[in-house]
Amino acid sequence: MNNGVEVCFMNPGTSEMQFVAALDRVGGMRPVLGLFEGVCSGAADGYARMLRKPAATLLHLGPGLGNALANFHNARKARSPVVNIVGDHSTAHKMFDAPLSADVPAFARTVSDWVRVAESGEEMGTLATKTIEAAMGPPGRVATLIVPADFSWSPAGDLGPAAQFRPRAKAFASDIQEAANFLRQLGPESGLLMGGDTLTDAGLKAAQRITSGTGARIFSDRNASRSALGGGRFAPERVAYFPEKAGAQLAGLKHILLVEAKAPVSFFAYPGRKSTLLPDDCAVTVLARPGDDGCYALDCLADCFQAANGLNLGWRGSSFTAGSEALTTETLGQVIAALLPPDSIVCDEMVSSSEAVVAQLAGAARHDFLPVTGGSIGQGLPVAVGAAVACPNRRVIALEADGSAMYTLQALWTMARENLNVTVVIFANRRYRILDVEMSRTGAGDLGPLANNMIDLGRPGLNWVKLAEGAGVEATRATTAREFAASFSDALSANGPRLIEAVL
Amino acid sequence: MNNGVEVCFMNPGTSEMQFVAALDRVGGMRPVLGLFEGVCSGAADGYARMLRKPAATLLHLGPGLGNALANFHNARKARSPVVNIVGDHSTAHKMFDAPLSADVPAFARTVSDWVRVAESGEEMGTLATKTIEAAMGPPGRVATLIVPADFSWSPAGDLGPAAQFRPRAKAFASDIQEAANFLRQLGPESGLLMGGDTLTDAGLKAAQRITSGTGARIFSDRNASRSALGGGRFAPERVAYFPEKAGAQLAGLKHILLVEAKAPVSFFAYPGRKSTLLPDDCAVTVLARPGDDGCYALDCLADCFQAANGLNLGWRGSSFTAGSEALTTETLGQVIAALLPPDSIVCDEMVSSSEAVVAQLAGAARHDFLPVTGGSIGQGLPVAVGAAVACPNRRVIALEADGSAMYTLQALWTMARENLNVTVVIFANRRYRILDVEMSRTGAGDLGPLANNMIDLGRPGLNWVKLAEGAGVEATRATTAREFAASFSDALSANGPRLIEAVL
Repeated sequence: MNNGVEVCFMNPGTSEMQFVAALDRVGGMRPVLGLFEGVCSGAADGYARMLRKPAATLLHLGPGLGNALANFHNARKARSPVVNIVGDHSTAHKMFDAPLSADVPAFARTVSDWVRVAESGEEMGTLATKTIEAAMGPPGRVATLIVPADFSWSPAGDLGPAAQFRPRAKAFASDIQEAANFLRQLGPESGLLMGGDTLTDAGLKAAQRITSGTGARIFSDRNASRSALGGGRFAPERVAYFPEKAGAQLAGLKHILLVEAKAPVSFFAYPGRKSTLLPDDCAVTVLARPGDDGCYALDCLADCFQAANGLNLGWRGSSFTAGSEALTTETLGQVIAALLPPDSIVCDEMVSSSEAVVAQLAGAARHDFLPVTGGSIGQGLPVAVGAAVACPNRRVIALEADGSAMYTLQALWTMARENLNVTVVIFANRRYRILDVEMSRTGAGDLGPLANNMIDLGRPGLNWVKLAEGAGVEATRATTAREFAASFSDALSANGPRLIEAVL
Repeated sequence: MNNGVEVCFMNPGTSEMQFVAALDRVGGMRPVLGLFEGVCSGAADGYARMLRKPAATLLHLGPGLGNALANFHNARKARSPVVNIVGDHSTAHKMFDAPLSADVPAFARTVSDWVRVAESGEEMGTLATKTIEAAMGPPGRVATLIVPADFSWSPAGDLGPAAQFRPRAKAFASDIQEAANFLRQLGPESGLLMGGDTLTDAGLKAAQRITSGTGARIFSDRNASRSALGGGRFAPERVAYFPEKAGAQLAGLKHILLVEAKAPVSFFAYPGRKSTLLPDDCAVTVLARPGDDGCYALDCLADCFQAANGLNLGWRGSSFTAGSEALTTETLGQVIAALLPPDSIVCDEMVSSSEAVVAQLAGAARHDFLPVTGGSIGQGLPVAVGAAVACPNRRVIALEADGSAMYTLQALWTMARENLNVTVVIFANRRYRILDVEMSRTGAGDLGPLANNMIDLGRPGLNWVKLAEGAGVEATRATTAREFAASFSDALSANGPRLIEAVL
């Protein structure tokens, strides 16, 4: 493998042994072991979100790929490029229905728009290049190459050619002009929804010029793969999770412009409530599709208006004095915001605790924010692994609900193995708290004792300090704001990973 | 749900809240929570293997099902009946490509031969009955019913009709006669391969009469879902894992009779070696296909010969004096065999440690043995959960490799939550040891340092005592035979689960 693919997150088996042996023989690839495949797929997602280029994953047959699907689903929704290599039984062995035989392409198609099965050893180089090209899109994709074992142990062909990447499409000047006209006419009754790769310094600066030149309202896709936040940066309104609140945010809009985003819809549907969130009479225009050059479009649009570049919002940072009060999501958010080191990377899988904490992060130092994208739980810790591998000089903060962290807690071991500078905060409320809310919203009625048991994680309580130490990660427990602030501060200056169980 | 489905292993989300609420309202279903979906699918497999009837699973959308696929693959290969209910977005919501939207039937088809999507609330009762019928086969299947959320919150129709189950097919008398003839003529050059549901007391007694009447050799499918072993029972030769050894076992056979089994093939293929294991000139006849009544066929066949029923093998049990020697797979096997309580259930996911231990178990007290079926790692602990729920009055012993146990260690929490009498033994060799063997067998050559890192689990070492305690399970570590014997003995008389880390 070449073409700029430098890291492989893997959990290999017998059919992949040739790849593993080639790590030393060929070189140029950093292998990172995950003790569960969902760690690998999630790490590749986190890596791609930070570097906008693919890592490889190396997985073992259909069921090994099966274990990776949930986080590939999330990577797909993040539009992260991933080069996914899956070993299969040798061609001659497949017909015998051995125990591990399965329909590998069928597993792959659930999350990959691009799936190829190698048909000879000779074509492997060319196919590898094609897989990288497919992964890069744009937009990024999980591209899957399935390699029967015999093509790994038969003579290889030439290395593949250099990959050629398609450019991102740029908007027509006439479209920009037309968009500028209606923003000017409608002012605050018009809006702009930013998603994809636009929530960067460049995109945010352009958006700020647009709103100050027109009064148009600026929103961000809450599931966009990465957002630059804090440090006084211009902050679009993030579309809310629950449809009532999102509907209220978007009320009054007559026309919305989509920039690498789709028209916003509710995360889940509820009885008697529609899925779409925009007012019924709001017109929708697409300035840039996912994969197009949205920042170019925003820049061109901003140039249509008179507005200062780089308006100073007068950010002074966040501060908070932590005392002996018990922990709440609000106090945790305040401490985290006050102590967040500049240029950190924040992974959010706090679920029911997220809103209160994220509200505080707006006042924190500048950071990149990696939210839930596809909604499949178990994303946060693996994404933190990938982000830390991608950006070894930045601090990664993984903010995790206790229920969520359990799905892929094997990621802790990889953090220890690779000595990654990740600070994990477990929001330990000992419930699938979000389901308390959803239970009533879906009209399912009151919780009986059996139903309550399916939401209660407190019997027995998970001990996150022991779980972390068992996986080789130093850990502490905090029950007051002061304890948490001390632990969080220590963790941020540590060499390697730390976990803090924040008891709510 | 009715029709004899009494347990549901679940990890529900928003789309399944109506099902969860109905647990209290309707009753008759025991819900068991797993903190990862692979625990639920593996538990349903273990339950079905012990009771020969389905448990239900309740999972959340495509990616939640994705997390369950590896153990559904194993359940499929075990031919375990499972009633798999998966919630999806409401019908109207699907078109909007919300974050969790995915092609749920595509996820399901990777492991289910039977997949239906509900099309109205009224048909739910009928569809539930059909799902149970499909799951029961025979042979058993993972039958998947996908339920859009709106059919859960809209008015339900009638309860479904009583399920009707297809009978198992019985062999023709003429086939039995013909089989009897060639066994008589060929004697030890003929053989019988037992699989499926035949490795029970009844099947083994018949097999013993057949071999003593004819000299025919009796083999067992190493991946059959459940085998009755120990206590002086007749023991067929289990076909070996590696093809050289299996080939040597089967050498000299001129004719083999398959009883609920398929012709044996190698687990993996290797360069220059064929997949099939039988001698080239060995004829194959199928007396009972998977799902047919193999025990009936064996009984009829046995009746063709003069042989005593229930021959006493003079079993006296296994004994072993444990001293201060370091642990090896042999000593562990000896201690386990000596202390194994009668009628326990042994789950084997020891991988590279399995052969040495299983050799000792032949001399242990009578037990049921649940091996790897589909080869996807992460099966053992969840299967132990399901077996313990199915058989609350029996002791379950989960023998686990450390690498394997990590895939689905969330199962430990469910053992604690349900206070299941499971004794988990972790064979802690701190490597994916089987890959050392496979690396050389596949011709991949010597291990360089990077490749070695992908097989080494010792940096950092997993601390299984802390991992277990973190999940609410009491645990100890053993480094000598005496320590292990004491811990194992304690664990077997404990109320609830225990874990022992056996350091190799």
